[in-house]
Amino acid sequence: MRNIQHKLSVARGEQRTELVFTNARVVNVFSGEIYKTNVAVEDGRVIGFGDYGAKTTIDLEGAYLAPSLIDGHFHVESSMLTASEFVRAVVPHGTGAVVIDPHEYANVLGLDGIRYVLESTKNVAVDFFIMLPSCVPATHLETAGAKLTADDLKLMMHDERIVGVAELMNFTGVFLGSKSELAKIAAGKGKAIDGHAPSLRGKNLNAYVLAGVRSDHESVEVEEAREKLRLGMHILLREGTAARNLEQLLPLLNAHNSQNCSFVTDDKLAGDLVNEGHIDHAVRKAIRGGVPPITAIQIATINTARHYRLHNLGAIAPRFWADFIVFDDLKQFRVRQTWKKGVLVAENGKFLGKSPAKVPLPRSTMNLRYSPKDFIVKANGKKKIRVIEIVPNQAVTKEGTSSPTIERGEVVADTARDILKMVVVERHHATGNVGVGFVRGFKLKRGAIASTVAHDAHNVVVAGANDKDILFAIQELERLRGGQIAVADGKVLAELPLPIAGLVTDQPLPKAVKLIADLNAAARVLGCDLAAPFMTMSFLALSPIPGLKLTDQGLIDTTKPEKTSLFV
Amino acid sequence: MRNIQHKLSVARGEQRTELVFTNARVVNVFSGEIYKTNVAVEDGRVIGFGDYGAKTTIDLEGAYLAPSLIDGHFHVESSMLTASEFVRAVVPHGTGAVVIDPHEYANVLGLDGIRYVLESTKNVAVDFFIMLPSCVPATHLETAGAKLTADDLKLMMHDERIVGVAELMNFTGVFLGSKSELAKIAAGKGKAIDGHAPSLRGKNLNAYVLAGVRSDHESVEVEEAREKLRLGMHILLREGTAARNLEQLLPLLNAHNSQNCSFVTDDKLAGDLVNEGHIDHAVRKAIRGGVPPITAIQIATINTARHYRLHNLGAIAPRFWADFIVFDDLKQFRVRQTWKKGVLVAENGKFLGKSPAKVPLPRSTMNLRYSPKDFIVKANGKKKIRVIEIVPNQAVTKEGTSSPTIERGEVVADTARDILKMVVVERHHATGNVGVGFVRGFKLKRGAIASTVAHDAHNVVVAGANDKDILFAIQELERLRGGQIAVADGKVLAELPLPIAGLVTDQPLPKAVKLIADLNAAARVLGCDLAAPFMTMSFLALSPIPGLKLTDQGLIDTTKPEKTSLFV
Repeated sequence: MRNIQHKLSVARGEQRTELVFTNARVVNVFSGEIYKTNVAVEDGRVIGFGDYGAKTTIDLEGAYLAPSLIDGHFHVESSMLTASEFVRAVVPHGTGAVVIDPHEYANVLGLDGIRYVLESTKNVAVDFFIMLPSCVPATHLETAGAKLTADDLKLMMHDERIVGVAELMNFTGVFLGSKSELAKIAAGKGKAIDGHAPSLRGKNLNAYVLAGVRSDHESVEVEEAREKLRLGMHILLREGTAARNLEQLLPLLNAHNSQNCSFVTDDKLAGDLVNEGHIDHAVRKAIRGGVPPITAIQIATINTARHYRLHNLGAIAPRFWADFIVFDDLKQFRVRQTWKKGVLVAENGKFLGKSPAKVPLPRSTMNLRYSPKDFIVKANGKKKIRVIEIVPNQAVTKEGTSSPTIERGEVVADTARDILKMVVVERHHATGNVGVGFVRGFKLKRGAIASTVAHDAHNVVVAGANDKDILFAIQELERLRGGQIAVADGKVLAELPLPIAGLVTDQPLPKAVKLIADLNAAARVLGCDLAAPFMTMSFLALSPIPGLKLTDQGLIDTTKPEKTSLFV
Repeated sequence: MRNIQHKLSVARGEQRTELVFTNARVVNVFSGEIYKTNVAVEDGRVIGFGDYGAKTTIDLEGAYLAPSLIDGHFHVESSMLTASEFVRAVVPHGTGAVVIDPHEYANVLGLDGIRYVLESTKNVAVDFFIMLPSCVPATHLETAGAKLTADDLKLMMHDERIVGVAELMNFTGVFLGSKSELAKIAAGKGKAIDGHAPSLRGKNLNAYVLAGVRSDHESVEVEEAREKLRLGMHILLREGTAARNLEQLLPLLNAHNSQNCSFVTDDKLAGDLVNEGHIDHAVRKAIRGGVPPITAIQIATINTARHYRLHNLGAIAPRFWADFIVFDDLKQFRVRQTWKKGVLVAENGKFLGKSPAKVPLPRSTMNLRYSPKDFIVKANGKKKIRVIEIVPNQAVTKEGTSSPTIERGEVVADTARDILKMVVVERHHATGNVGVGFVRGFKLKRGAIASTVAHDAHNVVVAGANDKDILFAIQELERLRGGQIAVADGKVLAELPLPIAGLVTDQPLPKAVKLIADLNAAARVLGCDLAAPFMTMSFLALSPIPGLKLTDQGLIDTTKPEKTSLFV
């Protein structure tokens, strides 16, 4: 700690402190109490409770003072914002730290992506801690931009801000004892090892935990979460944009176990972060659901700091960073002020922090090789095709079949029957891989929508009513160096540039929120009635998740998992 | 983990497991529940809950199965037993692990003492974790056998069983920012930093915590403990032989803070361990005091394991060691069986574990240089002497005065007025240092009692009615290579050999308990009515604790702290 002698002297009361908060109703997450006291701050840290003379006094007049909130598991790319713009969105909601898994950056850019994340998350008003992605690529059935082995993880593990190994999504590999997966767990020795085990129960779950996995955020029902908690897993209560499991899981909590739970968002869109909130939203929801406010705040702060060993965060006590939130009502829990290291960084919904220095953007990741001929599907007299059936608001799909609509000997989209052509173009290594299939559920009447956000390999995905618009959409995304777009009849209706890895926009927060809204509106104009058409599309190439999927390598039957043919 | 592939296979249910406990009422410290299930064990570890085929089945018929208990702070030397005999005493009481501070060994033997502790605590039925002593020597006013600096601590800190820096007793040095003390804290970076701050409150306590101290076991009143808990200190609830603070501190606990508390004994004599119990005694007392049993067991297990980062201990879950206790009644909490790594090591009060291989004893530490003339106090016509006044059952003393009883021009003991002569002979470096003084409170009518256990420097201390018996007692202790003894008229009434550092006996547990009882009985025969005369004597040379003390350097006024004269 810098200037320790000076700080000790201030703590002993020999000199005035920089800043004191008087008449604070302190939420003490250690003693589990809320009581009135004064809190002294020097050089960004709490130095003590009590009556301290100060250069600056903030009279809180009985308002609540609690530690800033922590998100225990978040993919920052899901907001499509840079770290600095994400900070702008969440600091007014009281966020002080976030544990991120840069899984998407890593799938596109590998170690370079993680380096970019480390660099771009410095000197911002939120502390970023990083879990190293453990599943890059997700499977061998899609072509990602990079591959990370256990040796790669070891290379970075010693960085102080690297706090462990991120969600081990290949849970089958783990419980079957795959050497590569066990090596990744071993690489994180002494740090946190996150799990991802949707619906895993019983003996295979025992084995998954035995292998060393220590948390899970995939429970959607309370009995599943209880089984995991009993096995010693830290339970990450998820409340994001798509997955909203908190309410369902609240009955898990009793008077003796909340210390083993944290709030997380996993994925949350920029607009939702701004309008609904971040971890503060989970705290509100928990309190409304009957959780004692002190418990809800512990779950949102110290529990997460302890699990991930985030030093000097998550509590108000000497040596801890002066990361505070101020609020006026324990039940409403609306954050009025956010303080970071003793500096006011948000008030009444307005971000007051400084903008960090610009960080060099990573290299372009749009390396495509394709020709319009690749999109053509010869009918060859076949009578039945496989069709990807969208399940609204879910990452899973179903496999359907249909008679093909044929024009000039080619199978084509048929908007009358809600069958669109879907194309996936590999964009990392210019392999020339192009996958073509058909999808039902978008209901576009014309035009096309396209995106370079497509879990987990993030190749270019397009769904369209005709090859011309499909081609135009891809060309426009190349021009943008990545993005999301809605086109029709050779014209752009709306577009969101995502030049950072094809995942994240370089636009400021309000502009980004507007562009995303415009895109969804444009999709609706084209006929789509899905709540989140681009998020839905981003899951259609996700080969580890059940259903019929389309990757750059072609149609994938993920239940086997292996490639399958378009024609039945 | 060895044989991980095999264990995973067993966990998946593909092979029979070695051992399964059926119909167990499991105390789950993670989920905060008690419920019936089966627990499977392979190769010493839990591998899962559920229905497993097993080579050996233990039907618990509804008995409770909980994790073995952990003592968070103990000086094993206080039992005067070797590690293996201590294990024999506590395993029947359910102890599975103990965090020790070998403060006394280190004061006598330095790094050699810590090496001996590491060696002698291997392959026993209790896991020993070691905090490195931070106050060797305790002060410059007594001559200890060794000195440990921050650099010495760093030398050993990387050992897996070294879990931090032990109690920073020089709390004034810490809150004043003494470089040597801050360096010791820095040496423990990433590990636990234990405190010792009796009665420290307010701003100086803020500074003590700010410096990095993270626990305390010295609170005797609940408001003091609450202040420390609010500052983020882990509260070690002490219940030992002399210091019994648990009942007083129970009101500290509420539904939201027990995770920040652990049970500890600090110092506990062999007989008390055998007869009263160890951490099980604290659990019983807490339950009787109204603490929910699940909470009491969490405080005795997982809370301590987490605070000290004892991996895979303190809970029943996959990957954790199969360290269990079995008991039949949640309120009575009498341990019926203790299991260590899947092996039954105690049942119905009887230790069933193996004796470990003998460890070479450390070098002799009895290096005395003195002559009977050193004990003589010339009266020189003075009219008043300072007298150490014993405060029964406490480490503090008072300073009294008295007229000297003079024979042949020498100040002598006067049993009629309960004034004994006290002698301290330096025993580590043969410096020839001999301190002589007078003490009131032992009430010996004749003879002498002597000991090589004398906190913190552990020089030879004697209190006697005449110089002859004092000399005889010292000579006998030399013969024993350290010990405790009661003599009268040139005869040994009782003796306890302590050849290991002059602190610990080489005798087996039942013999040791008997010898200690015999010693106390002999002191009573000589006229002493103190409950624990040898423990009382062991504090009379303790220079950091308030009162008039006698070290090898002479009489010490510890309130200043500096040497003082016998004559007023």
